[in-house]
Amino acid sequence: MNVFVYTALSEANQNQLKQQLPTELELVFRTELPKDEVQEKFKEAEVIMGNPPVDWFNAAPPTLKFWQLDSAGFDQYKEVKVAALVANMGDFFARPCAETMVAGILAFYRGIPELVKCQEQKKWRGNQIRPKLDLLGNKKVVVLGAGTIGMACKQMLTGFGCDVKTTARSNPKADIHSFEDILKILPDTDVVVNTLPGAADKYVSGEFLQAMKPGSLYASVGRGSTTDEQALINALQAGKLAGAVLDVTEQEPLLESSPLWQMENVLLTQHTGGGYFAEEEGKIAHFLKNINLFLNQEAIPDQVNLSQGY
Amino acid sequence: MNVFVYTALSEANQNQLKQQLPTELELVFRTELPKDEVQEKFKEAEVIMGNPPVDWFNAAPPTLKFWQLDSAGFDQYKEVKVAALVANMGDFFARPCAETMVAGILAFYRGIPELVKCQEQKKWRGNQIRPKLDLLGNKKVVVLGAGTIGMACKQMLTGFGCDVKTTARSNPKADIHSFEDILKILPDTDVVVNTLPGAADKYVSGEFLQAMKPGSLYASVGRGSTTDEQALINALQAGKLAGAVLDVTEQEPLLESSPLWQMENVLLTQHTGGGYFAEEEGKIAHFLKNINLFLNQEAIPDQVNLSQGY
Repeated sequence: MNVFVYTALSEANQNQLKQQLPTELELVFRTELPKDEVQEKFKEAEVIMGNPPVDWFNAAPPTLKFWQLDSAGFDQYKEVKVAALVANMGDFFARPCAETMVAGILAFYRGIPELVKCQEQKKWRGNQIRPKLDLLGNKKVVVLGAGTIGMACKQMLTGFGCDVKTTARSNPKADIHSFEDILKILPDTDVVVNTLPGAADKYVSGEFLQAMKPGSLYASVGRGSTTDEQALINALQAGKLAGAVLDVTEQEPLLESSPLWQMENVLLTQHTGGGYFAEEEGKIAHFLKNINLFLNQEAIPDQVNLSQGY
Repeated sequence: MNVFVYTALSEANQNQLKQQLPTELELVFRTELPKDEVQEKFKEAEVIMGNPPVDWFNAAPPTLKFWQLDSAGFDQYKEVKVAALVANMGDFFARPCAETMVAGILAFYRGIPELVKCQEQKKWRGNQIRPKLDLLGNKKVVVLGAGTIGMACKQMLTGFGCDVKTTARSNPKADIHSFEDILKILPDTDVVVNTLPGAADKYVSGEFLQAMKPGSLYASVGRGSTTDEQALINALQAGKLAGAVLDVTEQEPLLESSPLWQMENVLLTQHTGGGYFAEEEGKIAHFLKNINLFLNQEAIPDQVNLSQGY
């Protein structure tokens, strides 16, 4: 069975994958092929690792049996029809995403961006910065979404003594289930953390932002499309919100013309949320785990249904 | 009884203090006095709020009965003799100090300083930054000191899934008690957090730093004097440590000539650790609580013995 590896891997990691792959599989690395052969090889794939461009699936490989996505979300493939088992990355990105959210929120309260700028200029300004700082402890937090990222955020924030409520339409683990009930507690909420998937288009709307407590903080590691970005910019410019920590934006890279770049109270973490130095190695391990389950005809906990979107 | 308020308070907070003070007390605000009257008034004080310069106590007020320090530490007053009850700020600074430590450590692992600099330059560099990031979760941490700051650090770090051990010579709450036992676990420790008081002069010595795991992180919110700063700079320059988060330095403000300013892997939080926007209000509340206990001749949990140092 041949494996088309779309994911760009370092040479060391390519070798690592070769060594650990079950012997009945044969690897084809997209990045090692001449450009004009790439799509031909793709069409012959029986196994795919990674996220090829969605339009390649207009001529989807008829032989495809197993497809390991490189991501947790897969909204872009909603219309793709393949007669194969598809798995996503499960909770692989949950912890790094949640850590980036908490890092950003703590950085905001403890003045880290201003301290970094002072250090660049060799200015010792601790005494001027101190009276502007705030504490995360005891803050009331609402986490939109009770998936793996949301629950990881909740665990970390609870360690600071925060009162954390999660939301989800139907997930019984969540504390709040309807948009109306969320709107009701927003005026008494200090921090909103968005971990929503792409299906929740502009969930954080102008109405949502207006309901938020004056001086509260908005943080997002959900899809960029789940925030009405213009409404957010308006709320920041009007001084309604104290600030924002954004791992995602509607367009990425963020347009140079966006006012978000220069807002002192906005921290852009530039979609680094899921990252960490051993990401490639982790993806290989995840792929190997799942392909072995597939070959042994065992259940794959990360199996997904593309048409349902995420 | 007259109260000499050394602490600089805003007008609003001066009024707040006036309103809530027991009626038998009379306030003298240092910042409202003509310069040439300040020390005269100091010498008549029966109660002091704040931390006057140590040399003023060469002519200590003979009438002094109660002194509320503005700080947790009081090493500078070790030689001061006053026949008065002295109280420090107890655990008032513990949570803000611990939050700044965790904020700095998380910022280090999640690339926040570099992201702040990219944002200043309007550069979207998430993809280049991702492979450099690390995770706090599951890190092995040693917290030097098992006082209120150390225990607050432990609680917060445990929420990330870290394995946290605290140290103290005699405090039974600590996990490790001797310098030798600390040296033994350092090679297997990812992060050292220093929360030591001033008495532990250069506790983090060249020997200590040499014993640390290559690529580990050093963070300090203890006294600046508890770290051998030149040995730390050497360890950073040699690439022995991955980085440092320093709320304190041997001299503050940090000398302009210090190489720490320009090290990419050093984050200087400039002694902001204890700060937050309601610090003055908190100090007033703390003073009022303790002065009322004093007047009612009840035990004051924050009572300290100057000569023992902290």
